[in-house]
Amino acid sequence: MKAHPRLSLNQATIKYATLEEALGVTAAAGIQSIGLWREPIAAVGLDDAVKLVGDSGLRVSSLCRGGFFTVPPGADRAAAIDDNRRAIEETAVLAAAGTAGSAAVLVLVAGGLPEESRDLPGARERVRDAIGELEADAASAGVTLAIEALHPMYAADRAVVSTLGQAIDIAEQFGPSVGVVADAFHVWWDPQLLEQIARAGQLGRIASYQVCDWITPLPADVLLARGMMGDGHIDFGPLTRAVEAAGYTGDIEVEIFNQAIWDMAFAPVAERTAHAFGEHVVPFLAPSLR
Amino acid sequence: MKAHPRLSLNQATIKYATLEEALGVTAAAGIQSIGLWREPIAAVGLDDAVKLVGDSGLRVSSLCRGGFFTVPPGADRAAAIDDNRRAIEETAVLAAAGTAGSAAVLVLVAGGLPEESRDLPGARERVRDAIGELEADAASAGVTLAIEALHPMYAADRAVVSTLGQAIDIAEQFGPSVGVVADAFHVWWDPQLLEQIARAGQLGRIASYQVCDWITPLPADVLLARGMMGDGHIDFGPLTRAVEAAGYTGDIEVEIFNQAIWDMAFAPVAERTAHAFGEHVVPFLAPSLR
Repeated sequence: MKAHPRLSLNQATIKYATLEEALGVTAAAGIQSIGLWREPIAAVGLDDAVKLVGDSGLRVSSLCRGGFFTVPPGADRAAAIDDNRRAIEETAVLAAAGTAGSAAVLVLVAGGLPEESRDLPGARERVRDAIGELEADAASAGVTLAIEALHPMYAADRAVVSTLGQAIDIAEQFGPSVGVVADAFHVWWDPQLLEQIARAGQLGRIASYQVCDWITPLPADVLLARGMMGDGHIDFGPLTRAVEAAGYTGDIEVEIFNQAIWDMAFAPVAERTAHAFGEHVVPFLAPSLR
Repeated sequence: MKAHPRLSLNQATIKYATLEEALGVTAAAGIQSIGLWREPIAAVGLDDAVKLVGDSGLRVSSLCRGGFFTVPPGADRAAAIDDNRRAIEETAVLAAAGTAGSAAVLVLVAGGLPEESRDLPGARERVRDAIGELEADAASAGVTLAIEALHPMYAADRAVVSTLGQAIDIAEQFGPSVGVVADAFHVWWDPQLLEQIARAGQLGRIASYQVCDWITPLPADVLLARGMMGDGHIDFGPLTRAVEAAGYTGDIEVEIFNQAIWDMAFAPVAERTAHAFGEHVVPFLAPSLR
């Protein structure tokens, strides 16, 4: 079985897999690329993780995740910045361990409002400031910091960066080592979506394109509201064409947080991912890259 | 007890009250204005509702709700347009029945994606087209059609109008009988919020300002995620100041969908509403109007 060459399986889609299992399942499904998470890497240690990734023959499309920048200045914030510096290093060595075409992209989730705070503009400024503190480290490591806009329903408790346009507004204040993630689940509803994707492309800032579907009714835990492409309401055609037209040529990750999918065996999930990607995304890729 | 004169209790906050109970509870709490819903009016019939409203001594701040415009052309759409025409008439007579300062404002909820459809731009166009069909009726009845942007988490299943800016984009294509609702719960997260409120003011399009809070964790049914002001994450200061600076001088509705609040007796809810409004909104009203 061969999956489309630009498909990357984000490890969150098979959350309960160890790194070794995730690499094996991905390769066995004919998927050439994987999006990694820090927790399963920490579970084996970075050195072993680098070896496992190198032996897998897979590309690395990103590392999830850094960020959580919104706490006020103090020890917690300093710890967050330090942790992001470690994440930058991890991103660099893991991308180097992957096969050719791996991307040294660290996905950043901004963080929500600090405890007891209602100062949303202040939290947003701290995100920008933190990226400013990390930009030089990222540039010297050859890593792209990829700001991910999360759906506005997470603005209070998870990510104060709520639209693609807002993510670009932050990224463009920095050099080329700061970019944005376009995640279909988070941005599909945005009336400005297509123009902001074009803008991100013109600025050379699209660091990652992620796909999964928006399903209804939303489950009780809205963090697990993501579905397989085709199971929900998102039209991947216009979005994918826009990302292609904007010049993005990298891997496209499928990242799904969904309890029913997590409860399945890993191999069928990888196979279903490859199939759904072929059906709902591949037809809209630019012909030269399809 | 005297509530602030600009407070209006939206009837949805005491959902299980009959019209007569809602009017009585509102007046007894010293609240001068009420936002009405069509269902409790239909339960007594429009003629009796007009008499009850007239006898109450209250202002009417709006009628909820029209809309649900996104079905494709055909019998269902024609029925939706007809129903909106009836809602326009109801809005006019109910506002006339209220005391001086009542507002003939019909709140419009756009409707979600039609069954099996993923055509979000198409659904959005149908909303605009439907408002075009209704504008003349509204103008001749002296009614303002108030387009309400709903939170993007409802884009698939309830309202394809997802931001205040998008609502204004629609409204400004029509005459002054089409406006927008600024509902704190739906728009608080928007990085463009303050500039869009100013824009709506410059265009003379703010038809209603509604407040309630965003609480976390979101309940299992996200339609019931609204909280009393002060119980959640919204900073009502900048938002209220912006609405005031934009020239809005009308009633400010408290509209809360929350099972725990619905399960309380009506009178304490009205009193708590008046208190929370005094604490979290009144301090930010323009001094001349406070």
